[in-house]
Amino acid sequence: MPELRLGLIGYGFMGRTHTNAYKKVASFFPELKYKPVLQAVSGRSEEKIKAFAEQWGYASYETDWRKLLERDDIDIIDICAPNNMHREIALAAAEKGKMILCEKPLSMNTAEGEEMAAAVEKAGVPNGVSYNYRRIPAVTLAKQIIDSGKLGKIFHYRTNFLQDWCISPNVPQGGDSAWRLDAKVAGSGVTGDLLAHCIDTALWLNGSITDLTAMTETFIKERKHALTDKVEPVGVDDACSMMCHFANGSLGLFESSRYAAGHKALFTLEINGEKGSLRWDLHDLHRLEYYTKTDEGALRGWRSIHVTDHDDHPYMNRWWVPGLQIGYEHTFVHQVADFLESVEKGTAFSPNFRDAVETQKVCDALLKSAKARSWESV
Amino acid sequence: MPELRLGLIGYGFMGRTHTNAYKKVASFFPELKYKPVLQAVSGRSEEKIKAFAEQWGYASYETDWRKLLERDDIDIIDICAPNNMHREIALAAAEKGKMILCEKPLSMNTAEGEEMAAAVEKAGVPNGVSYNYRRIPAVTLAKQIIDSGKLGKIFHYRTNFLQDWCISPNVPQGGDSAWRLDAKVAGSGVTGDLLAHCIDTALWLNGSITDLTAMTETFIKERKHALTDKVEPVGVDDACSMMCHFANGSLGLFESSRYAAGHKALFTLEINGEKGSLRWDLHDLHRLEYYTKTDEGALRGWRSIHVTDHDDHPYMNRWWVPGLQIGYEHTFVHQVADFLESVEKGTAFSPNFRDAVETQKVCDALLKSAKARSWESV
Amino acid sequence: MPELRLGLIGYGFMGRTHTNAYKKVASFFPELKYKPVLQAVSGRSEEKIKAFAEQWGYASYETDWRKLLERDDIDIIDICAPNNMHREIALAAAEKGKMILCEKPLSMNTAEGEEMAAAVEKAGVPNGVSYNYRRIPAVTLAKQIIDSGKLGKIFHYRTNFLQDWCISPNVPQGGDSAWRLDAKVAGSGVTGDLLAHCIDTALWLNGSITDLTAMTETFIKERKHALTDKVEPVGVDDACSMMCHFANGSLGLFESSRYAAGHKALFTLEINGEKGSLRWDLHDLHRLEYYTKTDEGALRGWRSIHVTDHDDHPYMNRWWVPGLQIGYEHTFVHQVADFLESVEKGTAFSPNFRDAVETQKVCDALLKSAKARSWESV
Amino acid sequence: MPELRLGLIGYGFMGRTHTNAYKKVASFFPELKYKPVLQAVSGRSEEKIKAFAEQWGYASYETDWRKLLERDDIDIIDICAPNNMHREIALAAAEKGKMILCEKPLSMNTAEGEEMAAAVEKAGVPNGVSYNYRRIPAVTLAKQIIDSGKLGKIFHYRTNFLQDWCISPNVPQGGDSAWRLDAKVAGSGVTGDLLAHCIDTALWLNGSITDLTAMTETFIKERKHALTDKVEPVGVDDACSMMCHFANGSLGLFESSRYAAGHKALFTLEINGEKGSLRWDLHDLHRLEYYTKTDEGALRGWRSIHVTDHDDHPYMNRWWVPGLQIGYEHTFVHQVADFLESVEKGTAFSPNFRDAVETQKVCDALLKSAKARSWESV
Repeated sequence: MPELRLGLIGYGFMGRTHTNAYKKVASFFPELKYKPVLQAVSGRSEEKIKAFAEQWGYASYETDWRKLLERDDIDIIDICAPNNMHREIALAAAEKGKMILCEKPLSMNTAEGEEMAAAVEKAGVPNGVSYNYRRIPAVTLAKQIIDSGKLGKIFHYRTNFLQDWCISPNVPQGGDSAWRLDAKVAGSGVTGDLLAHCIDTALWLNGSITDLTAMTETFIKERKHALTDKVEPVGVDDACSMMCHFANGSLGLFESSRYAAGHKALFTLEINGEKGSLRWDLHDLHRLEYYTKTDEGALRGWRSIHVTDHDDHPYMNRWWVPGLQIGYEHTFVHQVADFLESVEKGTAFSPNFRDAVETQKVCDALLKSAKARSWESV
Repeated sequence: MPELRLGLIGYGFMGRTHTNAYKKVASFFPELKYKPVLQAVSGRSEEKIKAFAEQWGYASYETDWRKLLERDDIDIIDICAPNNMHREIALAAAEKGKMILCEKPLSMNTAEGEEMAAAVEKAGVPNGVSYNYRRIPAVTLAKQIIDSGKLGKIFHYRTNFLQDWCISPNVPQGGDSAWRLDAKVAGSGVTGDLLAHCIDTALWLNGSITDLTAMTETFIKERKHALTDKVEPVGVDDACSMMCHFANGSLGLFESSRYAAGHKALFTLEINGEKGSLRWDLHDLHRLEYYTKTDEGALRGWRSIHVTDHDDHPYMNRWWVPGLQIGYEHTFVHQVADFLESVEKGTAFSPNFRDAVETQKVCDALLKSAKARSWESV
Repeated sequence: MPELRLGLIGYGFMGRTHTNAYKKVASFFPELKYKPVLQAVSGRSEEKIKAFAEQWGYASYETDWRKLLERDDIDIIDICAPNNMHREIALAAAEKGKMILCEKPLSMNTAEGEEMAAAVEKAGVPNGVSYNYRRIPAVTLAKQIIDSGKLGKIFHYRTNFLQDWCISPNVPQGGDSAWRLDAKVAGSGVTGDLLAHCIDTALWLNGSITDLTAMTETFIKERKHALTDKVEPVGVDDACSMMCHFANGSLGLFESSRYAAGHKALFTLEINGEKGSLRWDLHDLHRLEYYTKTDEGALRGWRSIHVTDHDDHPYMNRWWVPGLQIGYEHTFVHQVADFLESVEKGTAFSPNFRDAVETQKVCDALLKSAKARSWESV
Repeated sequence: MPELRLGLIGYGFMGRTHTNAYKKVASFFPELKYKPVLQAVSGRSEEKIKAFAEQWGYASYETDWRKLLERDDIDIIDICAPNNMHREIALAAAEKGKMILCEKPLSMNTAEGEEMAAAVEKAGVPNGVSYNYRRIPAVTLAKQIIDSGKLGKIFHYRTNFLQDWCISPNVPQGGDSAWRLDAKVAGSGVTGDLLAHCIDTALWLNGSITDLTAMTETFIKERKHALTDKVEPVGVDDACSMMCHFANGSLGLFESSRYAAGHKALFTLEINGEKGSLRWDLHDLHRLEYYTKTDEGALRGWRSIHVTDHDDHPYMNRWWVPGLQIGYEHTFVHQVADFLESVEKGTAFSPNFRDAVETQKVCDALLKSAKARSWESV
């Protein structure tokens, strides 16, 4: 039984979701040749990383990620560190010939992303980026429906990602829990954190974006920094929106915010085509809404598909019986399974680093447009 | 232009809904031969009935309904008086050869209903009972779907009618606003007021009921009577439920209550057949949910049909454009239109008095069963 | 009983909705001093206008709207003619000292609108524009909630109006049924027809818009013209979207389309404030969704308010009992009632011509921005 | 680190869900003293049980469950075998002093259940029954709301469990996949399989049931038996319903069916009290609907609570961040965690065998009532 020895870097929220996935995949995808082994995890605080390793069953730990890369008993590096560390780790891991799975966004900007993509391509190592929402069964089903031609020519693509955890001015920036508000660590705000998911999914479902115009806003201009304990200007975008054209002629409308009261993690998408439409949102991730003009006129309506059928729905033959939901964590199990399969078959995982650079390009164009108040080509 | 001169008896909530319907029908159903004329309205208080006549445009009024029946310039009697007056008025109106539209429930019990049905049949006068919910476009569409065979053999019929206005012990019984709680005036409580709607619709959609067992409850045993100003025992049922068999082999489950917090007038129904299912409720009366097993497996889901299409949906070619809802009041317009059409064509209106006796039989069997704690044949 | 003698110009879809409202208002708002009388209606085809007058009960008709304006027995002119006739009729009616209710959009552009507003102000005649959706009880309730401060500072305003009736290339442009696709008659496409509603409501609920950037699209470039029977270029926008800033600092995102399969008339809006949020859509117009952070943490959720309570909800004390919906047509009854009340009290109706010019300014800026691909001040 | 060595009997659907839970619990509930170890699993087919043990990581396997009970290295027996084996295994395990977690329903009937409860009580071993739906966070939240008094006196309890997988006459009875249709193995049909869940939850949330009347039906009277390959009479109930009184004075309405097209596993419940109401269903298990009369009149509505808040909602501090759903499998993780905690603390797990006997009593009274067509005391 060929083992794939994992070295995880970072042990926060994403460190937990990825670890859980590696632990589950062999039982639920038993046909896969490679079986992940929790070989080592890395984090700066010895006390914390030791506790994490024990809690999750890692065989060892490191307090310096560079040592992890040096080890011969590590086959795959999983990067769950903050955004500003992705590049350095990825370049080093590629040089060591490790396989790499990197949390999203791939990089702080397009230039970094290009460098990283070039590095893994040069090294010839399997690589992937964790845009996990593609692998929600309902979203994968949407992809299948679109690819089957059931929607026909696409006119509209509408998507947003809304949260509400930043409304209070008392939320700090920086530190373990709020590094996403620290521009030096996160790069951008909602653009890279939330809209990047919308963009990745959109590029996958609806093809490339040609040009766009955008708007960003930082509602609360100053927040206390958790590390310096001083009130500092907030450098990230609290909200962003963009209008764009897709190469297929459809119009796009994108928005994300952390100031939308009542929405915890409301990633939504809607696609309108000449023959039908699709709608989905993350708050009821197990449902896909589908409208088709081929239904008899008097009986047409949006169908609410409960995407839980063992026999009919993507990935669901791995889980339970019809009607019983899976949840958020399963997207990571599917991701690991597909990554392992791509390693086994020697095919490219999707999205890989190169694919993720396309998302970076849209993010960069968005930020540039918002600053310049102009349309930008992607 | 042949006029149909209306004499309305009663000017409460139902007096208003019926009057509004008579006023609208000619404009929205211009092809109908008979045009209603608001000839006279009757009520005991001269002050109130005069004001009502003025507000709504009646040409005259009476303070004694018997005088209304005597008049030669009245063609149709519409009975909107409380339940305990239906029988006497209807018998007298039939004797005078008037057409009759009677509010539901038809009568205080089956015996009265039989007498009334016999009277109108003997007199040969057009007659109908105002089970208006049949004529909600979504409910009529349900009827069309069932009759088309799209559901196949029926297994289950589930329906309830839930309100919450009696939870407070301070609601009185009796008087203008609460005669529905006075057993002498209303006959029964939720059984005749609410469940009768469920029963009428069920008999129409799913055929006759053969036997049933039931339960009733009066949660608040005593209430002040608005007329006597004394605390008196409550004689009506606050809640009722029944299980039954339909003649077609399906199982029925019925419930109504005025103690269901959060439900204002939630009349619901669901029908499960071997090929598909239907669901509807009064709180979103313009929608019908439809599930069909003929849809492709992966794409099956409950369709939410927005029953507002001018070209495709029952009655909707009379109203606006797709997407724009009609409401509660329109059920009465449809009812009057269908009644006028039946008069014009010499056909029976549905439900007529005879049909409504069937609903009374179920109500009586329900009340008997609840008392005897036994199954009863209908 | 002071009569207000109506002269209606136009007898299409809007002619019907307005007429119905004038006929109902006195019964449902009996306290109003002025009672509308259907004095005359005007349309070019004698055959058609005569039939319309008969069907709806107008006392007389004209085949030239100028003759209607000449008549002394007309107090109020209601303009339901196509957009390109609004200006001429309104200017002439103002000169004759008639009160004016004008269908939306007020005008073909801002310049016309300014001229019209100046004319009615100079003439000192009561005037109003039929942005009827403000008067849906749920939308009026939203206004009350916002004005009460329950949402606090606003961050986001999101709205769209989606239809799907233009997807087929076989829909013609021009003529009775499709003049909305003829640029010469309609002025613009979805911008003036649909987005204008979104804009009017937004300005009412959230205050003025300072600047915007927009995108428009005409998906099907040529359609047969119903009058010439020739294939001609389509001059109107099939879809539009805009991003904007409101004067209160909030961000706006607007979109409308006639190519969104599955949406018949889906006007939606959502407002996110620091203390709570609101959501509403026209397909379930009797519901308002409300989220408040003041609810206890574990029990917070979007409340679906069934806006049908006689005692608590705007306008609903005119209609039925809790739980029973009103529909689209009632917005026009409320509009006429409020107009009559404003005449009685000598106050300004909202929106009047001057208010509606603000909506035109946004529409013009939108169309300019879409052409120039630039941000525009309003 | 004290280990709790597991011996699992049965490796079907429930064998998988339980195993997954034992594997996850230590990482997600790290504070628990006892850590489960997958010591052994038992099944009759060596080929299959060996494969299962490998796939899931069991250290060993047995082909005779009696041998499993003999082993000293097993601390806890988890019974996932079909219903007709529960009694014998449980009695033997109790005699050996093993802790026992038993799948539901506890037994084939009340008599068996009483015997089993007496046995574990005599042996003094920790014991529990897997009514896992109690531990859905939304259901546990419902329990907290009810216990806090927020609903006040309860009037109605309404619940059903609807599936549709038996509509086809081609579904066999008996064998691995359809033993639930074989009366000799399953005991009853939907009553023990589905309604038992409704009953357990109801007893937990609303207290004991005093008397009931019920109806059962077997729609398809004969099916091929998978083991004998002969068409045989179907001995189980395809559908059942019951009306009942709870000891607290509220009325109950229960139903379950495997013939409700469109419902995969629709377990629903609704509770109406004098101060508010609750609604929940398994198809959107992460949501709880709550209505409270304490909300301001105009703003009252059913709240849809997205039960995913790390800080506020039961069990959710173990999982992800607000807005991200967990699913069906997590109910078993919670169950194991609570069981381990009860072992650690020496408290009774709920529901234990004694609690589950109460559910059996209701099931038995239901089946008796349906046969006798009479009310039965519980």
